[in-house]
Amino acid sequence: MEFRFFKKDIDNKQEYDVIVIGAGVAGLSASIYLGRAGKSTLILEKNAFPGGAIATTEYVENYPGFEKIEGIKFAELFANHATKFGAKISYNEYVKDIKENYVITDKKTYKAKAILIATGTKPRKLGVEGEDKFFGKGVSVCALCDGMFYKDKTIAVVGGGNTAFQESIYLSNIVKKIYLIHRRDSFRAEKILIDRLKEKNNVEFVLNSVVKSINGNDKVESVTIEREGKIENIKVDGVFVFIGYQPDDSLYKDLVETKDGYIIVNQNMETSKKGIYAAGDVVYGSKKQAIVSAAQGALAAIHIIEYLNSLQ
Amino acid sequence: MEFRFFKKDIDNKQEYDVIVIGAGVAGLSASIYLGRAGKSTLILEKNAFPGGAIATTEYVENYPGFEKIEGIKFAELFANHATKFGAKISYNEYVKDIKENYVITDKKTYKAKAILIATGTKPRKLGVEGEDKFFGKGVSVCALCDGMFYKDKTIAVVGGGNTAFQESIYLSNIVKKIYLIHRRDSFRAEKILIDRLKEKNNVEFVLNSVVKSINGNDKVESVTIEREGKIENIKVDGVFVFIGYQPDDSLYKDLVETKDGYIIVNQNMETSKKGIYAAGDVVYGSKKQAIVSAAQGALAAIHIIEYLNSLQ
Repeated sequence: MEFRFFKKDIDNKQEYDVIVIGAGVAGLSASIYLGRAGKSTLILEKNAFPGGAIATTEYVENYPGFEKIEGIKFAELFANHATKFGAKISYNEYVKDIKENYVITDKKTYKAKAILIATGTKPRKLGVEGEDKFFGKGVSVCALCDGMFYKDKTIAVVGGGNTAFQESIYLSNIVKKIYLIHRRDSFRAEKILIDRLKEKNNVEFVLNSVVKSINGNDKVESVTIEREGKIENIKVDGVFVFIGYQPDDSLYKDLVETKDGYIIVNQNMETSKKGIYAAGDVVYGSKKQAIVSAAQGALAAIHIIEYLNSLQ
Repeated sequence: MEFRFFKKDIDNKQEYDVIVIGAGVAGLSASIYLGRAGKSTLILEKNAFPGGAIATTEYVENYPGFEKIEGIKFAELFANHATKFGAKISYNEYVKDIKENYVITDKKTYKAKAILIATGTKPRKLGVEGEDKFFGKGVSVCALCDGMFYKDKTIAVVGGGNTAFQESIYLSNIVKKIYLIHRRDSFRAEKILIDRLKEKNNVEFVLNSVVKSINGNDKVESVTIEREGKIENIKVDGVFVFIGYQPDDSLYKDLVETKDGYIIVNQNMETSKKGIYAAGDVVYGSKKQAIVSAAQGALAAIHIIEYLNSLQ
């Protein structure tokens, strides 16, 4: 996938009012509010681009106000909005640790009066044989990134939620055939997405089926499933896995209270540790909706501003 | 204030999956999600235009994704987004009562499987002598609506929050002079707004002052204030009151649990009555931010969809 070049626009300060970890929807939304309140804000983003999960979504259609917008364009609008009000974004900078008021990255150590963790989630793995072996070369978690490698080929898509359907709609216009493999006989995806995918004539639904392994020598040749007790082999050239998300809790698991790897916050987006806030998909109970992440970012910022003003 | 004409696009049905009361940010956001899920949705709006409070805001600058957009344009985008996915909006229709599954308006009675109350708030009054007498002819709560009546005249603005500052910035470009009267010596408004207003050379800050009465015979001639124990008279041609908001709870106060007139909801936006949800500024604890109202609308819709699906 081709991303625009995002300029590294930082000011080489070592100390900020707020450090926001993650330039996804939640982190950028918070930074808009923080900037408007005159708080110096640095956003640290491990990727080379803003937007987090939304950047790899083909189109956003359910963020109120935008009827239809490309994911990466949406991410860019958010990033521009945040930097307009003064936030700085450092791309390709990975946070390794948080110690008291210090944020330690692969490049530097910063000091901040408050920290917002908005690190989102990453795609969940199937955990079957062959998945790791072929990851990035036959197994993918991003249709926009890798779809074109499967032009006129046959693929399996695993999952039954919005992402599986959105990505399958996109892929169905590229590939010859999709087997959509889902462990149940009904879907969590929105009706509008289910209807759209069912209109495609190159999608075969493989229901009540669990993936057992991904097979091949140099490249993926087939996927083995168990359908209602029976083992079957389906010939495919690639497998796209969209079975949900999980956060990477290595940064914060010993720092704040968590549940199932997600951060527990109160209604002010405060974590169990004073001065540390969380927002977006990384928050326990999150609904994985851009509009909710944006609101959580704004709420976190509102309470961070109150907190910073109380320190004066 | 001139509003575009909003077409009444309803389908004369008497029964819907969901009736949304109020076409503000929360109601419209919910309707986007409801429409995408294939749920028939009617929005009842007492005004002739969508957007609620946001429609009378000059510019929206802190809804993530829009760096700067006129309030009424923003409202129109939301309304178009909701109707695109199938929601119907009936303007100029006022809800008088809710009885079980029935919503009774000044025109009709509708039946719905679920109801979303998104009626927002209205500007709070000062409660002083002269306020009611001159309301709409010397006393205003909307700069966009009434500002031009005070071209090159002297006005008082009462308040110290974001609305008072936003509206004063707008008014300062029209009127000769503004006295900004605030009961404290500091402001709740965002720093960026305070800075902008302080740059204006026709604004005088009257702090630690409480309005006691609005005076005049046929028209407003002055405002009486108490400043640090002393009574003073300030000559003005009009008074704009921006001292916060309060909900009109007459529709729901005997129906659902409330606090200070606001509706109490849980994290699923459910009220104390099954099948009735609330979102937006009418919700207790709301922060009066468009982004939060939009997220609450989306969350309400997500849980209404689950509820409706469970009825089948």
